[in-house]
Amino acid sequence: MSLIQVINPNTSLAMTETIGAAARAVAAPGTDILAVCPQQGVPSIEGHFDEAIAAIGVLEQIKRGEAQGVSGHVIACFGDPGLLAARELASGPVIGIAEAAMHTATLVATRFTIVTTLPRTLVIARHLLQQYGFTHHCAALHAIDLPVLALEDGSGVAQEKVRARCIQAKREDNSGAIVLGCGGMASLAQDLTRELDMPVIDGVSAAVKMIEALVALGLGTSKHGDLAYPLQKPLSGAFQHLN
Amino acid sequence: MSLIQVINPNTSLAMTETIGAAARAVAAPGTDILAVCPQQGVPSIEGHFDEAIAAIGVLEQIKRGEAQGVSGHVIACFGDPGLLAARELASGPVIGIAEAAMHTATLVATRFTIVTTLPRTLVIARHLLQQYGFTHHCAALHAIDLPVLALEDGSGVAQEKVRARCIQAKREDNSGAIVLGCGGMASLAQDLTRELDMPVIDGVSAAVKMIEALVALGLGTSKHGDLAYPLQKPLSGAFQHLN
Amino acid sequence: MSLIQVINPNTSLAMTETIGAAARAVAAPGTDILAVCPQQGVPSIEGHFDEAIAAIGVLEQIKRGEAQGVSGHVIACFGDPGLLAARELASGPVIGIAEAAMHTATLVATRFTIVTTLPRTLVIARHLLQQYGFTHHCAALHAIDLPVLALEDGSGVAQEKVRARCIQAKREDNSGAIVLGCGGMASLAQDLTRELDMPVIDGVSAAVKMIEALVALGLGTSKHGDLAYPLQKPLSGAFQHLN
Amino acid sequence: MSLIQVINPNTSLAMTETIGAAARAVAAPGTDILAVCPQQGVPSIEGHFDEAIAAIGVLEQIKRGEAQGVSGHVIACFGDPGLLAARELASGPVIGIAEAAMHTATLVATRFTIVTTLPRTLVIARHLLQQYGFTHHCAALHAIDLPVLALEDGSGVAQEKVRARCIQAKREDNSGAIVLGCGGMASLAQDLTRELDMPVIDGVSAAVKMIEALVALGLGTSKHGDLAYPLQKPLSGAFQHLN
Amino acid sequence: MSLIQVINPNTSLAMTETIGAAARAVAAPGTDILAVCPQQGVPSIEGHFDEAIAAIGVLEQIKRGEAQGVSGHVIACFGDPGLLAARELASGPVIGIAEAAMHTATLVATRFTIVTTLPRTLVIARHLLQQYGFTHHCAALHAIDLPVLALEDGSGVAQEKVRARCIQAKREDNSGAIVLGCGGMASLAQDLTRELDMPVIDGVSAAVKMIEALVALGLGTSKHGDLAYPLQKPLSGAFQHLN
Amino acid sequence: MSLIQVINPNTSLAMTETIGAAARAVAAPGTDILAVCPQQGVPSIEGHFDEAIAAIGVLEQIKRGEAQGVSGHVIACFGDPGLLAARELASGPVIGIAEAAMHTATLVATRFTIVTTLPRTLVIARHLLQQYGFTHHCAALHAIDLPVLALEDGSGVAQEKVRARCIQAKREDNSGAIVLGCGGMASLAQDLTRELDMPVIDGVSAAVKMIEALVALGLGTSKHGDLAYPLQKPLSGAFQHLN
Repeated sequence: MSLIQVINPNTSLAMTETIGAAARAVAAPGTDILAVCPQQGVPSIEGHFDEAIAAIGVLEQIKRGEAQGVSGHVIACFGDPGLLAARELASGPVIGIAEAAMHTATLVATRFTIVTTLPRTLVIARHLLQQYGFTHHCAALHAIDLPVLALEDGSGVAQEKVRARCIQAKREDNSGAIVLGCGGMASLAQDLTRELDMPVIDGVSAAVKMIEALVALGLGTSKHGDLAYPLQKPLSGAFQHLN
Repeated sequence: MSLIQVINPNTSLAMTETIGAAARAVAAPGTDILAVCPQQGVPSIEGHFDEAIAAIGVLEQIKRGEAQGVSGHVIACFGDPGLLAARELASGPVIGIAEAAMHTATLVATRFTIVTTLPRTLVIARHLLQQYGFTHHCAALHAIDLPVLALEDGSGVAQEKVRARCIQAKREDNSGAIVLGCGGMASLAQDLTRELDMPVIDGVSAAVKMIEALVALGLGTSKHGDLAYPLQKPLSGAFQHLN
Repeated sequence: MSLIQVINPNTSLAMTETIGAAARAVAAPGTDILAVCPQQGVPSIEGHFDEAIAAIGVLEQIKRGEAQGVSGHVIACFGDPGLLAARELASGPVIGIAEAAMHTATLVATRFTIVTTLPRTLVIARHLLQQYGFTHHCAALHAIDLPVLALEDGSGVAQEKVRARCIQAKREDNSGAIVLGCGGMASLAQDLTRELDMPVIDGVSAAVKMIEALVALGLGTSKHGDLAYPLQKPLSGAFQHLN
Repeated sequence: MSLIQVINPNTSLAMTETIGAAARAVAAPGTDILAVCPQQGVPSIEGHFDEAIAAIGVLEQIKRGEAQGVSGHVIACFGDPGLLAARELASGPVIGIAEAAMHTATLVATRFTIVTTLPRTLVIARHLLQQYGFTHHCAALHAIDLPVLALEDGSGVAQEKVRARCIQAKREDNSGAIVLGCGGMASLAQDLTRELDMPVIDGVSAAVKMIEALVALGLGTSKHGDLAYPLQKPLSGAFQHLN
Repeated sequence: MSLIQVINPNTSLAMTETIGAAARAVAAPGTDILAVCPQQGVPSIEGHFDEAIAAIGVLEQIKRGEAQGVSGHVIACFGDPGLLAARELASGPVIGIAEAAMHTATLVATRFTIVTTLPRTLVIARHLLQQYGFTHHCAALHAIDLPVLALEDGSGVAQEKVRARCIQAKREDNSGAIVLGCGGMASLAQDLTRELDMPVIDGVSAAVKMIEALVALGLGTSKHGDLAYPLQKPLSGAFQHLN
Repeated sequence: MSLIQVINPNTSLAMTETIGAAARAVAAPGTDILAVCPQQGVPSIEGHFDEAIAAIGVLEQIKRGEAQGVSGHVIACFGDPGLLAARELASGPVIGIAEAAMHTATLVATRFTIVTTLPRTLVIARHLLQQYGFTHHCAALHAIDLPVLALEDGSGVAQEKVRARCIQAKREDNSGAIVLGCGGMASLAQDLTRELDMPVIDGVSAAVKMIEALVALGLGTSKHGDLAYPLQKPLSGAFQHLN
């Protein structure tokens, strides 16, 4: 029995549920999903400032998850906030959903399109593409120009805008796959894959399967070199519990 | 029940067995492994010429596997011969073991080392790093300077040279993981991971888990765009059966 | 007297003639052109699958040409199928027409445009640009969206579409030269160069001149290192004749 | 009169003083330096985990500094923790000391060497080189293999190791300048520049002068696009004060 | 008291005045500006040929300035003609205005737009972006399609075209700052920054502040390695005075 | 009958002869070689300052050669000084010897080594590699640490150092070809190619053959776009004759 912790880095319980459901929908028989979010932080993540705060929440959950003996962790926000810091803290594997979705896209298509929420988050995706090595595998980046939480307002407007943008991307971008650029879009991937008849990839489910794969391979985060456990230091104030 | 075809692109039955065993060792309960190799071709792959010939054998097996309804395919040679051609031919996902090992390494370490067989194959690895986007994630490439089939001669000499090179790489390369650069090294990864106390990654097992992941996600090779099925054409001569 | 073998990697005799004529039109007084194509294979090349098959035909011709003592080889398909494998097999120089045209374009302009046939072949051109180092020298890639053999149907429709696309590219792309992205376009380069008053480059003729240049310089393919002759191995089945 | 806030992202008061002194030593007549550090956080920064925590302290100080009307901010840790988040929060310019030192080095030499503390921090420098565009301007990276706080232990051992490494780098690296890779090395730059007779660059002083330059030019952080102020959201828990 | 030489590489006295005024407007109290231009050369610089000639004028002024004991030099043409040659000749720092503007832009925005004069100069800007490492930081390049000297014809037409292009760029380019791509646009930056409410950057003023910064840091051009003084040689003919 | 002008950019008559001889040795029957050098300038080129002066001499010769109706031009100094400026001035093709040698090397080997004169010129070679797209095709750069004119002192010492460095490079660099990094080494290529049994490439002869190839293809420098003729302007002083 293996337990995978899926961390929604923002404090939205609704989105944590969306994400948890997407994770559970693909989890293997032997896998339990623990969907969590920080108790304090930001309600949604739409910029570097939001990410910096969210990273602390991610680290708290990583620490807690490690204590519980989880097998691996998913960081379920498309900016992968705190990813390398989380890897230092974890013995098991840690995967971000942007990372998972981008890797997956390169396995089924030569180039992919990203569809995300607010234009101001595009720069984060661009930096991740560069860091992961996929700048030349990305044909286009689009934003629907709605905030993250519009995906949780129940109206379906944001979902429809995502769908419309994907359809347009299929027609115009000369890419073979679409990456959904927000954890809150996790529930859309399967239907869009079917409707568009091309891979539309959600990072949450992709990351869960990647963690399962790494766990089955007996691979955790390398503790040799620059992802070794953080050096022991007296953390002070609000950060003491991270010690 | 899902069937994954693992294609050893050379004609060595011994190596096909090594590879098949590595694949079965990590396959999920619901996965069956079909380990195959071409009936005609090259006994080992150590250069571009060998790869070109092996690619035809790969395509034959892909075609056969598709006819059998396999869920996905692994190309179990570290040069990933015929990968994009195979993707055109397949509806399910196709993954090369170099690709699988490199992707996996970037998930558990910031940089990795490659240890392979003959020096003349290093250029193939370098080109794959560039194509996949991982040039900057590779800290070093090493060759043990023994041919591929030395791994199947039963003497253990090649295996010991791989081990020694990995130990040296751990000391010198400032990388967090090691990628084994030959399908014939598949059986070494677990022991070396334990001995070196850092991830030593075999592409065969990594690719099997990635195929399982893609299948579970409902993702096959994109048929929209440049990986669409090959255009129907009258193939002639020795290639008619690929039609 | 020097003999240059121009290999059309597809089985179309009409295209072999077009290519041979383009080669002969620029060959130096002392150069004889041997225009050949495989007896078995694909009638046209429009994807990676077609390329993989064509590569075998290329290797057969290289082997045959070497036996005949040709001075060098041109691979006359814009994807340069089998290029590095062919270089292993050859003592003399081997040049692909995409390679030749791209190199040539960078010598007469700071950036160039590529005009090719089907959109699905664009990814092949993109990969070659990356492999050869010219990604940043290419301002734009266009496809006329007609199959390769439309260039041989006698109607002139494809030729007119190429012409129109070149004229549009001159107006819009801010590039100084145009590269024709198919061996079947070889006969168009001179007229378009004149009509557009800018270099429109055909790879067949460019490659012939490059081979002549290398031969005159006494340079063959390096046999030191990773392009050394293929290691001797017992090839089996349909590949025995390549031994 | 202009006030520049120099933020030491760790909680070491000794290092804050070193940094403040380096800043004041180069400040223009009209510039006041406010050297601060977070009240809670990490005593030194030697990895991604440390950086994630330090980023919160940086943001607190940015917010406080903005309220005080400072003209600009320096993030005085060589990993530039929280840089883009800080830019969102600030109206004036924000510069990291790695950024400042790297930019400066490219203005006085064609390639530079980095000398830093622990090997595990090298990956952070490598990522910054890539993000800032200077990967090809860096000839070599070295670590003295001592923790950051060794620079504050009064023994001078770490300082001597830095000096020895710089001398060796001058001899071996074929680079024209050396970048000191830690805020705690700020006091060494001038003496080493003189002794080695080549530019040895400290990021703290470089960043102060760059901030002065931007302020004089009337340039603050762009609020058009992806560095606009963080969207207003109800931050919760320990982060409320960042609202 | 420090003296900074601002070299207009063309022979236009009007533009030299524009540039000198821009430099003086930002110079610190202790800085004197010496605005000069070559007595012989090209009246404006709009291509590589013009640049090659202008580079000689730049070197003459560098030599003269060094003899006068200036603290540093600015090359006030957006192609930075003769930059590395000038650095060899100078003991103090030398900065080009393209270099200065591009560096500055990356400090206040994640990506920038360039607006310049004639389309044929765009390639020069592209090459500088690559040389300085900023290819990925540039979102777009635009030309107003007017010659350089149109900026000095007193009609204001060129200035209005620059303004219009900047406004359009703000709307369309998803960049956070605009770099003015000509020394003759120096006087426009402040007003446009105000009108557009985003950083519009002039390289002349930026370069002056960077030189001041380097001088204050005690940093000159590195004389260790490839920017060492030119080797002493008997220059002949029109170049004797450069000896 | 076609006339190719080979321009030695320095004023050394001895080197002009060496270069002319190398050019004539490979020229086709129908080609005449005009080997020239500037009457004024620098006696050898070992840095950016030398290059800037040499560029003027190159332009003078280009202008003169165009007036004489030459078919194309070779710039016979390994830094390719004034290349793009020369292309603006010329109707026919212009090729630098670094460019020619690098292109040629990529046609016969997957990676090459450069062997040049003084270490301070390595940065020039590195910048050309980047500009031409060959950074990843260059395995190593070496300098024999002797000035250019040592190749003309008659002692043979420099030649022997080149030879020794090439032999060492063959053993250590894992590259398949060697590029000689100075026009003064032109006479060594053929013997070294024979002795080392691998391609040792001289740019002078390579460039001559490339010019012949372009001329035969009817291709001159593109006059569409950024290499169009220089705009007509009143050049003043010592540059009037370039008008």
